[in-house]
Amino acid sequence: MAKPSIAILTSGGDAPGMNAAVRAAVRAGLNADVDVYGVRCGYQGLIDDDFIPMDAKSVSHIINQGGTTLLSARCEDFRTEAGRATAAENLKKRNIKGLVVIGGDGSFTGALKIAQEHGISVVGVPATIDNDIYGTDFTIGFDTAVNTVMEAVDKIDDTAESHNRLFFIEVMGRDAGFIALHAGMASGCSEILIPEEETDVKYLVSRLNDLHSRGKRSMIVMVAEGDQCGGVFKLARQTEDALKDMQVRVTVLGHLQRGGSPTCADRVLACRLGVAAVEKLLQGVGGVMVGTRNQQVVTTSLAEAIEKKSKPDEDMIRVAHTITY
Amino acid sequence: MAKPSIAILTSGGDAPGMNAAVRAAVRAGLNADVDVYGVRCGYQGLIDDDFIPMDAKSVSHIINQGGTTLLSARCEDFRTEAGRATAAENLKKRNIKGLVVIGGDGSFTGALKIAQEHGISVVGVPATIDNDIYGTDFTIGFDTAVNTVMEAVDKIDDTAESHNRLFFIEVMGRDAGFIALHAGMASGCSEILIPEEETDVKYLVSRLNDLHSRGKRSMIVMVAEGDQCGGVFKLARQTEDALKDMQVRVTVLGHLQRGGSPTCADRVLACRLGVAAVEKLLQGVGGVMVGTRNQQVVTTSLAEAIEKKSKPDEDMIRVAHTITY
Amino acid sequence: MAKPSIAILTSGGDAPGMNAAVRAAVRAGLNADVDVYGVRCGYQGLIDDDFIPMDAKSVSHIINQGGTTLLSARCEDFRTEAGRATAAENLKKRNIKGLVVIGGDGSFTGALKIAQEHGISVVGVPATIDNDIYGTDFTIGFDTAVNTVMEAVDKIDDTAESHNRLFFIEVMGRDAGFIALHAGMASGCSEILIPEEETDVKYLVSRLNDLHSRGKRSMIVMVAEGDQCGGVFKLARQTEDALKDMQVRVTVLGHLQRGGSPTCADRVLACRLGVAAVEKLLQGVGGVMVGTRNQQVVTTSLAEAIEKKSKPDEDMIRVAHTITY
Amino acid sequence: MAKPSIAILTSGGDAPGMNAAVRAAVRAGLNADVDVYGVRCGYQGLIDDDFIPMDAKSVSHIINQGGTTLLSARCEDFRTEAGRATAAENLKKRNIKGLVVIGGDGSFTGALKIAQEHGISVVGVPATIDNDIYGTDFTIGFDTAVNTVMEAVDKIDDTAESHNRLFFIEVMGRDAGFIALHAGMASGCSEILIPEEETDVKYLVSRLNDLHSRGKRSMIVMVAEGDQCGGVFKLARQTEDALKDMQVRVTVLGHLQRGGSPTCADRVLACRLGVAAVEKLLQGVGGVMVGTRNQQVVTTSLAEAIEKKSKPDEDMIRVAHTITY
Repeated sequence: MAKPSIAILTSGGDAPGMNAAVRAAVRAGLNADVDVYGVRCGYQGLIDDDFIPMDAKSVSHIINQGGTTLLSARCEDFRTEAGRATAAENLKKRNIKGLVVIGGDGSFTGALKIAQEHGISVVGVPATIDNDIYGTDFTIGFDTAVNTVMEAVDKIDDTAESHNRLFFIEVMGRDAGFIALHAGMASGCSEILIPEEETDVKYLVSRLNDLHSRGKRSMIVMVAEGDQCGGVFKLARQTEDALKDMQVRVTVLGHLQRGGSPTCADRVLACRLGVAAVEKLLQGVGGVMVGTRNQQVVTTSLAEAIEKKSKPDEDMIRVAHTITY
Repeated sequence: MAKPSIAILTSGGDAPGMNAAVRAAVRAGLNADVDVYGVRCGYQGLIDDDFIPMDAKSVSHIINQGGTTLLSARCEDFRTEAGRATAAENLKKRNIKGLVVIGGDGSFTGALKIAQEHGISVVGVPATIDNDIYGTDFTIGFDTAVNTVMEAVDKIDDTAESHNRLFFIEVMGRDAGFIALHAGMASGCSEILIPEEETDVKYLVSRLNDLHSRGKRSMIVMVAEGDQCGGVFKLARQTEDALKDMQVRVTVLGHLQRGGSPTCADRVLACRLGVAAVEKLLQGVGGVMVGTRNQQVVTTSLAEAIEKKSKPDEDMIRVAHTITY
Repeated sequence: MAKPSIAILTSGGDAPGMNAAVRAAVRAGLNADVDVYGVRCGYQGLIDDDFIPMDAKSVSHIINQGGTTLLSARCEDFRTEAGRATAAENLKKRNIKGLVVIGGDGSFTGALKIAQEHGISVVGVPATIDNDIYGTDFTIGFDTAVNTVMEAVDKIDDTAESHNRLFFIEVMGRDAGFIALHAGMASGCSEILIPEEETDVKYLVSRLNDLHSRGKRSMIVMVAEGDQCGGVFKLARQTEDALKDMQVRVTVLGHLQRGGSPTCADRVLACRLGVAAVEKLLQGVGGVMVGTRNQQVVTTSLAEAIEKKSKPDEDMIRVAHTITY
Repeated sequence: MAKPSIAILTSGGDAPGMNAAVRAAVRAGLNADVDVYGVRCGYQGLIDDDFIPMDAKSVSHIINQGGTTLLSARCEDFRTEAGRATAAENLKKRNIKGLVVIGGDGSFTGALKIAQEHGISVVGVPATIDNDIYGTDFTIGFDTAVNTVMEAVDKIDDTAESHNRLFFIEVMGRDAGFIALHAGMASGCSEILIPEEETDVKYLVSRLNDLHSRGKRSMIVMVAEGDQCGGVFKLARQTEDALKDMQVRVTVLGHLQRGGSPTCADRVLACRLGVAAVEKLLQGVGGVMVGTRNQQVVTTSLAEAIEKKSKPDEDMIRVAHTITY
């Protein structure tokens, strides 16, 4: 009889720490004497039968690499029943009983479907820089992204301060303000605009003018991509007349926020969740996402993880407003 | 009648994020319309009457700086009743009702004494790279320190891998293995030696030889300063004969672990705890340390924070052993 | 008789290493027993009489800071004869015989005028991230900027590779391609578009399609701001149909390129040129810019430094094209 | 008739940028339509016949990696005539006419011997963090190493300043003071001890006490490994009584100085020299080392590169002493 096997894939937008999660899952599987396959390009590889047998060395020296060495891709075919049937067949012919899906909630939707339709045990590992997945305190990649943003803003602050300027800086977060809130607080921004709070441009202008009149030389306003203000270019156009004593500048940080060597916290989280995902599969548990709550590994049903959204902490938002100047 | 006032000091070994905590406490005090003093050189400044009135600008552009701009120092005099009486007098003559002490458990001992003897309200803010303070999930400075260690080990790993070498790397942690455990897991170390676990040098040697015989080209063993092995130099001498196929090298990372611009997580934690400390004082709460548990601000009595110790999570230790190779 | 004095200012766009140059100039002046003044906000401070007496401590711990602690500003008044007359008066009343101007060629134009009109000895120190000043191998700030760009592109490359994408990345360099050329070569970009070379968009498209068809998964094209293609957004629109197999993404790195703690090379260059500027003044030499050629300090007349432009090395350009893939 | 071929190896201590040089040499060879082999583990691989055919992809995404993916090793056998004969045979059987040796002067000695004894064309590429190779302004790896040291000292300076301490920091440089001189100047060290200058411990002590008495709170003394003082531990023991008002601390930076992702300058230098080495071979030039002088690629005979030593610039040393405080 063939040994039981598991497969691992990364899906959706890449996030720093995905490689650390793959490595941990591979090592945990091998240590439990299970055959482990890596699937390339996410669900596309499941359908295209792009499986790689993994040994301990296959994941050496990837813990510190950004992106995903298993690659990722969008996959329209997996949205079809036929596509998922092909994928399931490719898994079954290798005696793969369990699948680890490392990605965001979009990826979990596909995972839930193949689990329900074909009886594949699937465990999700939350990895996205946006941090908006329900069922975990933090997602893999978030800590790296906020540090990347903070370091970029620290650099911009050098030049803002030297020149008496106001910067509007746009960061990722189409649906959630986590990145803006954490990185904005950490880089001492004067204001932070997030989708979770209503944005009042008039109030913003009066607040910035007030700070300026109190002698504040430079100011940075951090804006989440998904904020109602409609983006930093629009915001700058709307406000620059009213802010006429200041030189207004705009920066959109862009894709550099997704990359980079993962931070310690992201690597540690990835190690823990990668191991936990495999352990759950080996215990016969499927249809769940692993996460951490209060420093402990917990599971949430995939359905719940997909349906609910994580929200920034109210107290964090209050503190952010308390200490700006 | 004079306005109520508060004072803020940093004490003990410096930790990245202390400045962010000072800034947050100052801003929170000013926003509550309280006079705020900074005390230079920790308890020594209390005794020497080295107080600086703080305004919002006085803490501008320090959120990203390592060390402590308020300075720190050991203070023998504060261990005496006379010293503490002088300190209390200096506080009282400025109508200072509350004192924020940012530091480690050694610093909290002094804080508790002046609170008990002179009725000063004191709130402690846990800041030490060692992370071993009871009453908080993390201490300010820990996240920066583990990232510093991890980045150093990533560099050493380049050269280890290029040359087929075994490195013993010693990191800070006289009493606790947090730094070694987190940074060791995150940098993919082959073994991690911490004071909380018994160290069996014979087993270590056989494990390393086993990994070597399975083709592992380079290995790094991370050793907490306080591990029973007695330090990396002793460990290298004890093992190098038994590890004779490998070139053994030793590095003690040293004081660079204490410095550096704080990470996002340390700055956010410092912002939250700095604000919380002042809010507690203004609510009339004293004799406590503020910390976070499960992402929420909590308080612990100073007596408890001093007496108990925080321990690394058992599951973390298990995971660290599971994924090494 | 009053001691001789010198004054130091930073002008124009800020560049990492300006503070290191100020520090070196201040220390060199003090070591030669000369009174040293710092002038705030560039030429504006000369006119507004905003002078600060500098001692050795006044420049402590600024060597590693980005931006300029002496601040910088545009100054329309200094373009007028009346403005320069006021400035000269403010210098003369303090017995200041020599002025160190740290900035770009725009700043040197003002320096040359006040020298010619009012007999002030002026020495220029070339500091701009653009590196396009004649008379020196490198300008202060360039090395930091190219490392900042390279590190950002390294991060973007993680995500490009994970997702099979083509990125157009725009970097600073309105008149010169130095930043794009050095950082583009160093980050392994597939193509580099600079103002010094004609850009043929059709050729670019065929070249990228060719690389793609040979199996190259991700590609990055670095574009200097001043390239004839007219910016990355226009370039993306023009090419995306012809590049239809690839997902095209655009990033404008923006102002983070100006900031950051200076690199070792920028700090060393700033130390050398800051000292050299003061030594020239004390030797009675004025009307020149200091720079380095072949690792040695050299001087160029300000007139020549203003008139001529530095160009990227032909061999560098050839090598950049040789190794792309 | 077989195509002409070239081979590339890295040898001696690894240095950041070796991978970038390998990549450039491989790409330059392939672009010239030559077969290219990588040799693993330096000269050991030549003898052991450990050759890998290289294509353009084989060097993708290594430009930013520290260490050497071709690996390095000491090789006693290559010091023997028999060893070199075997190596030459392995080269000849693949029709390899030219060999690129990336390493330090020790590696060039072997290169010269195999060239002289067996008529192999060899071109050396100087790569060592020590920068002490004659025939080039800078060696590959030096710029990265000095930035690594500088960043570590910046961190230590945070804690030194917070606590009123004196640090002796030892950096690499057994024979040469380049690292200490550049990184020491760039991190604002109070004193820099290098083998090229006589060290007078008594003078050092009086100078440090003098600075201390003038109010300098923290001091860092950078010591090159090869300085006559005999290392930082000995220096600390010798001086701590005489420096009794200061807390003396010692740090040996160690092997982290060798690793890390190469800086822009190191990558650019590696690109240029990797290409130049192959171009020289294809032009029929051998027995030389390529380097840069005054930003231009130059060649030096291997014999001369081995015999002579590069020395720190006198003016640099003078400037370093001028601006310390």
